[in-house]
Amino acid sequence: MTEAPTAGGRMAAEMAEQPGVLATLAARRDEQVAGLRAVTGVAPTGIVLVARGSSDHAAVFGRYVLELVTGRPVALAAPSLLTRYGVRGELDGWLAVGVSQSGRTPEIVTVLEALGAQGARTVAITNDESAPLAGAADATVATAAGTEAAVPATKTFTAQVAAFALLAEALGDVPWSAADWDALPDAVADVLADPAPSRRAAERIGDAPAMAVVARGLLLAGALEAALKLEEISGIVATGASTADFRHGPVAVVGEGFPVLALSAAGPTAADVEELVTDLRVRGGDVQLAATDLAADLPVDPALPEGLAVIPLVVRAQQVARELGLLRGIDPDAPLGLSKVTVTH
Amino acid sequence: MTEAPTAGGRMAAEMAEQPGVLATLAARRDEQVAGLRAVTGVAPTGIVLVARGSSDHAAVFGRYVLELVTGRPVALAAPSLLTRYGVRGELDGWLAVGVSQSGRTPEIVTVLEALGAQGARTVAITNDESAPLAGAADATVATAAGTEAAVPATKTFTAQVAAFALLAEALGDVPWSAADWDALPDAVADVLADPAPSRRAAERIGDAPAMAVVARGLLLAGALEAALKLEEISGIVATGASTADFRHGPVAVVGEGFPVLALSAAGPTAADVEELVTDLRVRGGDVQLAATDLAADLPVDPALPEGLAVIPLVVRAQQVARELGLLRGIDPDAPLGLSKVTVTH
Repeated sequence: MTEAPTAGGRMAAEMAEQPGVLATLAARRDEQVAGLRAVTGVAPTGIVLVARGSSDHAAVFGRYVLELVTGRPVALAAPSLLTRYGVRGELDGWLAVGVSQSGRTPEIVTVLEALGAQGARTVAITNDESAPLAGAADATVATAAGTEAAVPATKTFTAQVAAFALLAEALGDVPWSAADWDALPDAVADVLADPAPSRRAAERIGDAPAMAVVARGLLLAGALEAALKLEEISGIVATGASTADFRHGPVAVVGEGFPVLALSAAGPTAADVEELVTDLRVRGGDVQLAATDLAADLPVDPALPEGLAVIPLVVRAQQVARELGLLRGIDPDAPLGLSKVTVTH
Repeated sequence: MTEAPTAGGRMAAEMAEQPGVLATLAARRDEQVAGLRAVTGVAPTGIVLVARGSSDHAAVFGRYVLELVTGRPVALAAPSLLTRYGVRGELDGWLAVGVSQSGRTPEIVTVLEALGAQGARTVAITNDESAPLAGAADATVATAAGTEAAVPATKTFTAQVAAFALLAEALGDVPWSAADWDALPDAVADVLADPAPSRRAAERIGDAPAMAVVARGLLLAGALEAALKLEEISGIVATGASTADFRHGPVAVVGEGFPVLALSAAGPTAADVEELVTDLRVRGGDVQLAATDLAADLPVDPALPEGLAVIPLVVRAQQVARELGLLRGIDPDAPLGLSKVTVTH
């Protein structure tokens, strides 16, 4: 029996591939880490990450986890400085990482090449080992997620986060184990097999014009990506922020019934998230919690450590965004006039 | 005659102090730059900036302008890595800059101290030279903006941007001149003397639940700060973004009548802003332009170079935010349950 094409069918199909993609990356872990270490060394002078859109949110995960293992501040590149202002410097000893699903975004290729020409060692994270981004880099983590046809990136994002986790392992000691990698694909499969909580979450958000997504530390990237998925697919204006930044002003927008999604996992920032959730509820905010806690509104495997938990938590957000788009009569595969490859320079 | 206290009177009074504060900083320019250079040297290995809220947006300006003059990627610190995850590394040769209006935000003091203890040379940007942040730093740029009583930071932000401009001068060649510094206070005074365009802009935004503010490069900090002012004072959900990032997804939220504020100045990114404005208008967005162009919806002095133009452009946004708050019956001095000092750790 051939399934009839339905709205959001491609996005759903690509979401469903995530456990397999992650299992493939996990299986190639030792080989990838060794290959990366040969290029990066263990103590770069500094690290700079180059990306846009969903890939930039994966880079925010990289920003935290690479600083966690190296103890050096990690910069997110501002491409305009290279492409518009012509800035060039001396980057011997630096590590530059370019992230692009297709490996063909001209801006990302241009910037990674420029950083390499200034002396930085370069790593590409891309789906396509034959793409120009890989050609411009000293080493490549092939996310091997396969072609992504739906406009909203799903399997690409979670594979990029996993790639940064591998890069972190090449550079230092990480707060997760081989057993955690083994558990990751099933944790994502469990989320995918249980969409009901996400449907309820979308119904609670309903037709609100705006919402916020908050998290902290290693989960911040998840909040930013969740906000982007919600904006892209449903048209809701979604602010993603760290719990700490959110207190410095944006909290002002939270009044009676304002929807908030909070991501949390057992770890160093769980108390910060809990404290903000309490305060937002006092303001009348309608807070829903996605957490490594079976009692949460949007539960994920409680056994996963914070560093890898961001992956199933984002899959929860993908589900919510897709359900919200469908509720609002939008086709999640090609929402709101977006196209798959965005060209900026 | 004593003026009766009015809603937003303190914020208006503090906004009005900005030309004087900037003139004071401009007058002390040579002395400040020499003092900074003695501490920073001219070629730090890497640079990391520590701030929250409005100060963090000033740091985004610093991020661009310090990279522009040094050619090294500049990182914005993620305080949680130090305060929650206990990350420590080797930062000999690095420069760390902490930014806090009061100089008493515990998190910023703690992080700057920790970076100094790891070997970084440290600079404080603060209103109070006797505050703990200055005590923790090797050098201080005193923004000398005086006490700020209204909750929304105004004169503090523009003074912090000016302080980063001075720090950039200590580190390299900047794209503005002494004559531009001399013209800056008057450019801000001209904006303050002409509130009518901002009142019209606020009326056009009206009761919209959400809006966006876009810019690129050296002006991006202005877009982020404009969005924060609008959120803090009026309760509108305002997304601040670079024109390039905005194309990668968030553009999906712009439909018929969606308000957008675009900041622009003659320079390397003007064409990018113009192109996005055209595209957003095609989507039906109600785009208003704040620019170094007397024909713009919100004009500022056309003679100012892009690097300093961010200051009067943000003053325009302060005006719009204040007018929008007043239109919505909110007291701009103490809006929506915010307090002046936000404590995060």
